[in-house]
Amino acid sequence: MTKQELFNQLVTKKSFLCVGLDSDYNKLPKHLLNLSDPIFEFNKNIIDATAQYTIAYKPNLAFYESNGISGWQSLEKTVKYIKEKYPEIFLIADAKRGDIGNTSKMYAKAFFENLNFDAITVAPYMGEDSVTPFLAYPNKFVIILALTSNKGANDFQFFTNENNERLYEKVLKTSKTWGNSDNIMYVVGATQAQMLSEIRKIVPNHFLLVPGVGAQGGSLQEVSKYGINSECGLIVNSSRGIIFADTTADFAVKAEFEAKKIQQEMEEILLKNSLIK
Amino acid sequence: MTKQELFNQLVTKKSFLCVGLDSDYNKLPKHLLNLSDPIFEFNKNIIDATAQYTIAYKPNLAFYESNGISGWQSLEKTVKYIKEKYPEIFLIADAKRGDIGNTSKMYAKAFFENLNFDAITVAPYMGEDSVTPFLAYPNKFVIILALTSNKGANDFQFFTNENNERLYEKVLKTSKTWGNSDNIMYVVGATQAQMLSEIRKIVPNHFLLVPGVGAQGGSLQEVSKYGINSECGLIVNSSRGIIFADTTADFAVKAEFEAKKIQQEMEEILLKNSLIK
Repeated sequence: MTKQELFNQLVTKKSFLCVGLDSDYNKLPKHLLNLSDPIFEFNKNIIDATAQYTIAYKPNLAFYESNGISGWQSLEKTVKYIKEKYPEIFLIADAKRGDIGNTSKMYAKAFFENLNFDAITVAPYMGEDSVTPFLAYPNKFVIILALTSNKGANDFQFFTNENNERLYEKVLKTSKTWGNSDNIMYVVGATQAQMLSEIRKIVPNHFLLVPGVGAQGGSLQEVSKYGINSECGLIVNSSRGIIFADTTADFAVKAEFEAKKIQQEMEEILLKNSLIK
Repeated sequence: MTKQELFNQLVTKKSFLCVGLDSDYNKLPKHLLNLSDPIFEFNKNIIDATAQYTIAYKPNLAFYESNGISGWQSLEKTVKYIKEKYPEIFLIADAKRGDIGNTSKMYAKAFFENLNFDAITVAPYMGEDSVTPFLAYPNKFVIILALTSNKGANDFQFFTNENNERLYEKVLKTSKTWGNSDNIMYVVGATQAQMLSEIRKIVPNHFLLVPGVGAQGGSLQEVSKYGINSECGLIVNSSRGIIFADTTADFAVKAEFEAKKIQQEMEEILLKNSLIK
């Protein structure tokens, strides 16, 4: 998917919501557990309930890997289901991979060729050759961790050099030279909204994937105020706040309700910023 | 496995060699490709040929994930084979994972509970809560990336603060407070051997996993000179230099030859340092 196609979808759906498929087996509604693939059944219901309000889905690989082979089967079926039924939706592998060049090349094959994801999250610690293999794929995106939403973000991401430059700023400045806004995005946590105006000075045109709204406490209004650009430039993720809003037989109805609520708030923000009419 | 058990094995085998199972399907000997699980057959032969010279195996997850479900089957069978036939061997998941707490917890489950690895490599970018879920498992190790062996290591790992402290030093100093040398190890690339004496001042007692000897050009003599401690404290990995030393029907014989050659060099180093008699 190209950045333009992503933007078109955003305008059509009046939304910049990503639903995180952190489909924890232990939190699934009980009535699904008798089915042959509870995680896939759960995802399918969540997807059908939220697709009209959503521009992206983001399966979190840990929740699939933790179920071994059956988890990978659930993941493959989920990807196939989305790609066939909702081909316009941007599909992100939240995998936080990153290794030396010959290894990252294999991860790129796993997620871009075999599984047909549109994007993958990558940790920047190992530098350029850990990221560039992902950039070799046209119309795919690598989403580099810049400033994350968790408490541990403070441990190293604010490490500051003599020019008062922080590590996450160094990551943004250096890595943006490896590609461009057509193949790189960045993770910036919603809990760091106040940093977004500084970040926008470094990467004015890149899309930012923003986790941390909802369960982690970030504010959509704050994120939009400081982070929005002329193509919106934001994909705001909510996981637990939508998919586990309810864990009874009504889970999909409640997920739809929560997704719609966020979409409506996003529609107002897009209107206010003249990105839609 | 405890650090003491690892050291005992090291003394018994007179070796601190780790064989990296970067079992790239496209590089396998052609005669294996007709079998039902070529990667597992390859690994089994490599393991049987090298186990007496080796204290650790390190499957590189990318080479399994890139084959989807069948890759995970090969991985599970490989882990089971090693744990049953060579229970004394230290088993490292080279996975470079790391995510927010609730997600890292799932990765810990995947690799420590389901697959029974003894250790996993983890990227430090997201800080403490991305690492601590792995430390909750007794007799397991998290191996944190400090200074890697690739060219991209220079992009961020040498980022320096006003006290002339580099990022990888900050990572060592901070993360060592999250646990101790009984549950944390560090990755330090063999191509960075000259840095090892400085690193030993920060983490004198931790085991270091040292990739980059062989195909990547690092020197075993240099690594040992600067990195060895009173328990050896080194696990030196070679992947391609052993497993793909030969890709004909003789691949296992040649792998044994290469592993033995390194083990003999290691035996001399251990003798010289009075770690064995």
